[in-house]
Amino acid sequence: MSHPAHPYLIAVDGGGSGCRAVVASYEGRILGEGRAGPANATSDLVQSIANTRVAIGAALGSAGLEAEGRERFVAHLGLAGALTSEVTSRITRECGLPHVTVGDDLETALAGALGAGDGILVSVGTGSVMAGRRSGEISRIGGWGLQVSDQASGAWLGRGLMERVLLCHDGLEAHSDLTASVLAEFGGALEIVAFATGATPGEYATWAPRVVAAADTDAQAVALMTAGAAYLGRGIGVLDPSGRAPVCLTGGLGPAYGRYLPDLHGRIVQPQGTALDGALRLARAFAERRTRPGT
Amino acid sequence: MSHPAHPYLIAVDGGGSGCRAVVASYEGRILGEGRAGPANATSDLVQSIANTRVAIGAALGSAGLEAEGRERFVAHLGLAGALTSEVTSRITRECGLPHVTVGDDLETALAGALGAGDGILVSVGTGSVMAGRRSGEISRIGGWGLQVSDQASGAWLGRGLMERVLLCHDGLEAHSDLTASVLAEFGGALEIVAFATGATPGEYATWAPRVVAAADTDAQAVALMTAGAAYLGRGIGVLDPSGRAPVCLTGGLGPAYGRYLPDLHGRIVQPQGTALDGALRLARAFAERRTRPGT
Repeated sequence: MSHPAHPYLIAVDGGGSGCRAVVASYEGRILGEGRAGPANATSDLVQSIANTRVAIGAALGSAGLEAEGRERFVAHLGLAGALTSEVTSRITRECGLPHVTVGDDLETALAGALGAGDGILVSVGTGSVMAGRRSGEISRIGGWGLQVSDQASGAWLGRGLMERVLLCHDGLEAHSDLTASVLAEFGGALEIVAFATGATPGEYATWAPRVVAAADTDAQAVALMTAGAAYLGRGIGVLDPSGRAPVCLTGGLGPAYGRYLPDLHGRIVQPQGTALDGALRLARAFAERRTRPGT
Repeated sequence: MSHPAHPYLIAVDGGGSGCRAVVASYEGRILGEGRAGPANATSDLVQSIANTRVAIGAALGSAGLEAEGRERFVAHLGLAGALTSEVTSRITRECGLPHVTVGDDLETALAGALGAGDGILVSVGTGSVMAGRRSGEISRIGGWGLQVSDQASGAWLGRGLMERVLLCHDGLEAHSDLTASVLAEFGGALEIVAFATGATPGEYATWAPRVVAAADTDAQAVALMTAGAAYLGRGIGVLDPSGRAPVCLTGGLGPAYGRYLPDLHGRIVQPQGTALDGALRLARAFAERRTRPGT
């Protein structure tokens, strides 16, 4: 079924590393695609809007739809950092499209992973964030950055590993194979401190795979994964007190926590699609709302 | 009793905020004093040596001893960050004095607080560090910086407070009066994140007095102080497994942990003196060793 007034959909997924846009038919057939640079709305709002417009323009060009009237498109833009109404309003005004909804990348990730249904998304990469949809309402937990949040994330595991290596070095914890080998690789405690003092979350996160790889047998790695899983388990419990909602463990490290969360047995589901798929779904939902009487 | 070859002592206490030197008679009477700028040997070794020399020169000038032959002085320099033999050797060579020992500020703090005896120094300010002397041997624990260490410190309490405020905001913890009022003062979670993202250890530490002030009754403050005290207690246990050595709780926050460490009952002692007193004591000990046959 096509849409009388809005035959085309536009979906955007943008974050710190870049921005992607697709143009699709109302039925969901992809007609064109475009890419542009970073589009995190908190880091740099002007750049975020500019790159969103570039990606949309490229997608329209690749679909051969540059000349089409803009009122024939309905769009959803999912941009990392689009968290306040002040920011989303400005993006809405300046994105160059008359029919658009704007939200953050977690909303699109949730819509992509879970489709229209309720459920929980646990995203664990360099950072960590959890989101749940219950009766259509979205709640979020964490994702406030490594300094005061992002528990269980790759950066958190890497920083926690360094903290444990130093506790072992100082005699407050017993070295495991992992902590002893990391200390030897650095060459000493002062070298770890030199690394840690200026390390970015991404640099800490380069050590997370070592923790995950050792998490079968190594006591220090098990302690870190168990602490991370306890945090994720508490968050899942807050997002869904019923204990029945499906849970998607995504991001580079999300699946690694599955076996540390035995209570989720039978509830873990694979994501249905990507954040860009989610943005497309949200664009279509917006178009559907616009066809209802009175909207 | 005076010293035949070395009638004068020089003591230096230097760190990130400045450098102090005193000249004293061998018996310990202060003859002159000098000050200079920062002298942290890890942050900037060239500056540390230069400011140490300025402070010593000023102390000699104020004592009227500029013209005295440098071989008549025995000195100890206690400089923050003077942790490796490479660093202490270079300071020894370049400080302008022929008879000198060099160590870090913890060694002088320990000698100042505990005198010649064995014991433990627990220093908790913006950062935290513990040191113990047992049968003359010094061991140290922690003090590696907020990112991966400095548990129980003011910066650690302040950062932990922000982490707990966000956990309460997200529904994973129950708000206490303290966390609720901090959230209200900031105006929201995003404002806390904005503060935390670029906060220095000193900026985090400005919130520590709020934790200490609430630690009688407030559940979140009690949890933070209890976690900090558990760390300090473990460190004290490693530094003195006998459980009998005297313990000095120093720094702006050290004394606040006393009542969270009931096992220390009867072992807590007041510091005998400052780090500069300690440096003077170490200079005299070095002069005494030089008088013994065969040294």
